[in-house]
Amino acid sequence: MSTDGAVRRIGVLGGTGEQGQGLAYRLALVGHEVVLGSRSPERAAQAAAELVQRGPAIRITGAGNADAAAAAEIVIAAVPYDGHRELLAGLAPELDGKIVIDCVNPLGFDKQGPFGLAVGAGSAAEEAADALPLSTVIGAFHHVSAKLLLSAEPLERTDILVLGDDRAAKDEVIGLIAGIEAMRGIDGGRLRHCRQVEHMTAVLIAINRRYKAHAGLLVTDL
Amino acid sequence: MSTDGAVRRIGVLGGTGEQGQGLAYRLALVGHEVVLGSRSPERAAQAAAELVQRGPAIRITGAGNADAAAAAEIVIAAVPYDGHRELLAGLAPELDGKIVIDCVNPLGFDKQGPFGLAVGAGSAAEEAADALPLSTVIGAFHHVSAKLLLSAEPLERTDILVLGDDRAAKDEVIGLIAGIEAMRGIDGGRLRHCRQVEHMTAVLIAINRRYKAHAGLLVTDL
Repeated sequence: MSTDGAVRRIGVLGGTGEQGQGLAYRLALVGHEVVLGSRSPERAAQAAAELVQRGPAIRITGAGNADAAAAAEIVIAAVPYDGHRELLAGLAPELDGKIVIDCVNPLGFDKQGPFGLAVGAGSAAEEAADALPLSTVIGAFHHVSAKLLLSAEPLERTDILVLGDDRAAKDEVIGLIAGIEAMRGIDGGRLRHCRQVEHMTAVLIAINRRYKAHAGLLVTDL
Repeated sequence: MSTDGAVRRIGVLGGTGEQGQGLAYRLALVGHEVVLGSRSPERAAQAAAELVQRGPAIRITGAGNADAAAAAEIVIAAVPYDGHRELLAGLAPELDGKIVIDCVNPLGFDKQGPFGLAVGAGSAAEEAADALPLSTVIGAFHHVSAKLLLSAEPLERTDILVLGDDRAAKDEVIGLIAGIEAMRGIDGGRLRHCRQVEHMTAVLIAINRRYKAHAGLLVTDL
């Protein structure tokens, strides 16, 4: 649960992807109620049913993206970058007044490997904020490995950079993260910093390829 | 010294700045010969004389930037971003055939705090590579705190992302870094990733401001 002890109802858009499933699993593992959202409610229900089998106390259900957004207090956007802005804009009524955690990394791949895509608004998170003027968009979970999230192994200690322009919302997300095993949320500053944070994922992918790892980041001296 | 046991002669351009002095100190502490370069040879000599007092085995001298570049096998560019490209272009003959480690962070500051400056070439390191076609430019040391480098305290463990398009040169720099107390050099991929690595320093500054820290980064799962 969150550091304030509260159980949250969390929606995960793109919840049938690896990142979405992994975050849903880790959040449900500590007591939160999670609704996986997908374009296909059937696929969401199926993914939820599989995750629920991982433990007796895990509460995860599946729904369409709009129903997942409407049902939740806090919503995580774990969708592919392609179509991300349009998907969120279409859910603006369901997301009105809510914290939306964006963990989307706009990356391309060419023969030299991964690279950060130029984004008009600066970052995927800022695009989300433009598309959702009545929501509070926070960037987080960019660097955590979906493979590790979904693994049955205990997580290695990892830090999650939390970025945004609303201090109270950042603190709420940092509290949510602190409840997850081995994770620490760190205020990484303004939403505009999401560009370099999102693009840092290309560096982590390069590291993963060279070292055969699932690299993440820790911040020192805190 | 380096992991191959070799003592290197290392030039530090902008060697009278905090970052330059801090790197010079840590490299000299493990046996390397360092030449601090500065526009003013007198100021370089003075900074060197002060660092030498920190330990009996420390070998640091001062010189003009061109002499420091000419004398060294490996050169670190620790100059301010403003004027960085021009300074390096002017030293192209002295840097010919050498590894140039660029640790420059192109950042601006406004009322919201630090932010990454747009750079035509993509990053300061790529600008350096454009200005020095006969040198091998490697990006490294972007995130290490000058305050900690210059402190008399033992360093906390920190990772240094090493970026470039020449694998052998990257490995040489990684070896150099491995010789420094508490530091590990990690291949972070291509030189083009330097943009997000340089701009990540804005995130670390934001973290330092919120948490009163001298934050650095560690890479997990390696």
